[in-house]
Amino acid sequence: MGNVGTEVVRILREHSEDLRSRVGAPVVLRGVAVRDLATDRGIPAALLTTDADALVARDDVDLVVEVIGGIDPPRRLILAALNAGKSVVTANKALLADYTGELAAAAERNRADLYFEAAVAGAIPVVRPLIQSLAGDRVNRVVGIVNGTTNFILSAMDETGADYADTLAEATRLGYAEADPTADVEGFDAAAKAAILASLAFHTRVTAADVYREGISKISSEDLETASALNCTVKLLAICERVAAGPGEPSPEEGGKERVSVRVYPALVPRKHPLAAVSGAFNAVVVEAENAGRLMFYGQGAGGAPTASAVLGDLVMAARNKFYGGRAPGESVYAELPIAPIGDTPTRYHVNLQVEDRPGVLAAVAGEFAKHGVSISTVRQEGHGTGARLVVVTHHALESALADTVAALAEMESVTSITSVLRLEGTEE
Amino acid sequence: MGNVGTEVVRILREHSEDLRSRVGAPVVLRGVAVRDLATDRGIPAALLTTDADALVARDDVDLVVEVIGGIDPPRRLILAALNAGKSVVTANKALLADYTGELAAAAERNRADLYFEAAVAGAIPVVRPLIQSLAGDRVNRVVGIVNGTTNFILSAMDETGADYADTLAEATRLGYAEADPTADVEGFDAAAKAAILASLAFHTRVTAADVYREGISKISSEDLETASALNCTVKLLAICERVAAGPGEPSPEEGGKERVSVRVYPALVPRKHPLAAVSGAFNAVVVEAENAGRLMFYGQGAGGAPTASAVLGDLVMAARNKFYGGRAPGESVYAELPIAPIGDTPTRYHVNLQVEDRPGVLAAVAGEFAKHGVSISTVRQEGHGTGARLVVVTHHALESALADTVAALAEMESVTSITSVLRLEGTEE
Repeated sequence: MGNVGTEVVRILREHSEDLRSRVGAPVVLRGVAVRDLATDRGIPAALLTTDADALVARDDVDLVVEVIGGIDPPRRLILAALNAGKSVVTANKALLADYTGELAAAAERNRADLYFEAAVAGAIPVVRPLIQSLAGDRVNRVVGIVNGTTNFILSAMDETGADYADTLAEATRLGYAEADPTADVEGFDAAAKAAILASLAFHTRVTAADVYREGISKISSEDLETASALNCTVKLLAICERVAAGPGEPSPEEGGKERVSVRVYPALVPRKHPLAAVSGAFNAVVVEAENAGRLMFYGQGAGGAPTASAVLGDLVMAARNKFYGGRAPGESVYAELPIAPIGDTPTRYHVNLQVEDRPGVLAAVAGEFAKHGVSISTVRQEGHGTGARLVVVTHHALESALADTVAALAEMESVTSITSVLRLEGTEE
Repeated sequence: MGNVGTEVVRILREHSEDLRSRVGAPVVLRGVAVRDLATDRGIPAALLTTDADALVARDDVDLVVEVIGGIDPPRRLILAALNAGKSVVTANKALLADYTGELAAAAERNRADLYFEAAVAGAIPVVRPLIQSLAGDRVNRVVGIVNGTTNFILSAMDETGADYADTLAEATRLGYAEADPTADVEGFDAAAKAAILASLAFHTRVTAADVYREGISKISSEDLETASALNCTVKLLAICERVAAGPGEPSPEEGGKERVSVRVYPALVPRKHPLAAVSGAFNAVVVEAENAGRLMFYGQGAGGAPTASAVLGDLVMAARNKFYGGRAPGESVYAELPIAPIGDTPTRYHVNLQVEDRPGVLAAVAGEFAKHGVSISTVRQEGHGTGARLVVVTHHALESALADTVAALAEMESVTSITSVLRLEGTEE
């Protein structure tokens, strides 16, 4: 009975008549596992227990909602429930990102349901659309803002011009960031969700370890200024996309396999892109599919009541299945696409350099890009008295070539410093 | 094999391996009913027949996709399929708006599936989220742009300043409007979709006849100018919402029932509202629910491939159910909320009046609003030499009071003419 659990219990109790009508049978709350029994939670004490394992094992329990978070005990409890043929609804992205295979196999073996709409983007239906609505389509790309804390911080930095540390402190004060914000600001939370989204979109098992990850803690107020000057903002994006087969591998036309690139990092996003308008703690996910085209899903990605809404939707479906004999769609990983390393992923760079203010520097810098096969989109030179500033935006190139270029630039004598390197996403060219 | 059917057949043939993997068994195209056999459709002639009834009745057909449109023969064919225990996927909004009850009962009786994601907003998953994802929540309002033709026309009028007739002609030339555009421009198509959305959102059977409907054919370039001056645009909206119990009826707190208001009309929408940014032939649906908060779904609402994407998603789910023994959720109409007449619906009016240019007119006009109990938000007076113009925006009031006010204004001696009356939606106040 944390933030989400409290709301789940409230809805179960307040809307029991509606839920009964929707399921076709009453939904009865058999018990709630809590950490301590002393706190008054406004529900009958007889419903509370500290022994979660015993609660899950009870004969009169046929559906388990897990909103504890973390790997254990949730993994043990969910496996116990599934192995006993009980259906499970969970919001646990960290667990799913690493153990969906194990959990889905247990569900399959025991003909039980495993639902997890609430694990990604809170109340926003995105898991179910990917599994069901797009089951006959071919998803090419999923790009989302799936972490409310970082989006709140980046939106505030964009609006106020404040720096990262002050904005994080303010977010913590307002309850948008946890006391230890690492999981959010370093992108671990978004990476777990990206792994889940990529698994569903590409019918391939993707775990958190497959996700390239950078957080927002190095984003400066200068980065936001630079973004504004380019008519962009900065967003922490979760990106899942198909990329070409590896070098030397057969192409898909030759019977080879495309690969999957899954990554989380802060990036420049043009202000006219639909994701740029997603501000504060809101989430949004853009799905691009061969036939459906571009879809966008927008809403509240976190919070007790919104997450509970997603949990309850799953709970009603799981309960209906119990009553009418249906089954949730199982895991689909038949495509088994290989994961592309970050170096093989095409992206665009925006590089900000302090250089010596003398003729020939621009040509030398441009030459370094050319040497690595990176095509430049625009260069802007700004004089600054003691030196000059070069702002370079590239066309799409492989991440490895871009990273090598930046490393080489850092070695150049005429380059005083590299003040920022940001990727640019959401552009066609 | 019209626009959508051709795409469904193409995807079935091009992606048969993927579909097999996703269903767990091969999806085999047994036949296609067409109007004439002479046209070369690029598929084996043996698959084609002009006898749809015989095709549906065949023993080797266990799943029927209906993308014909209109009431009959689709109604007869779908009932025949369901009564034979065959699952049906349809994109037929006109049929569903009036006959969901009959079709759902046949599906229920025969333990067959009836899926219809493609009937509302093309590729955008909105039917499934309402039925499944929000099954544990309480939806308060659904507001959508669900007709691409009218949104294309209104967007173009907004951008170019052209009048309605010229813009409709251009839309027809470009293929965005049909030769007979009545169903789109008079709001019949949107009303059918509104009936389906309201039925799902409120667990109440709503048919097209329950939907109050006004089209866009009376919208003028002056209306768009007026909208711009108010920092608004004009959109054809489908609005489904809960409204208070009828006058004299017990309130929900007293055991009475809320009512459902379902309406389609062009309305002013503030430019900062998310629906204002939905331009061209795109669709978007905003769902407001008690716990989930505000969700938005955006994408391509029509066209062969996007609609086929929705059909194929349903087809894979229906085929999986055949194979694994699952069932689509049936119709849920337990709430049986009464439909509120349009007069009992709260809305806001924007009224544009030509009045005599003499002292006291503004006071007299304002007095007429007060007499009907309508509170005014803003009045702007503009001198025009031969007369003056009054622009009045009201607060929320019952539609009947607003309509009565406008009728009374038309009778006033000092009012030369009422040049436009538009509703204003998407504002909190």
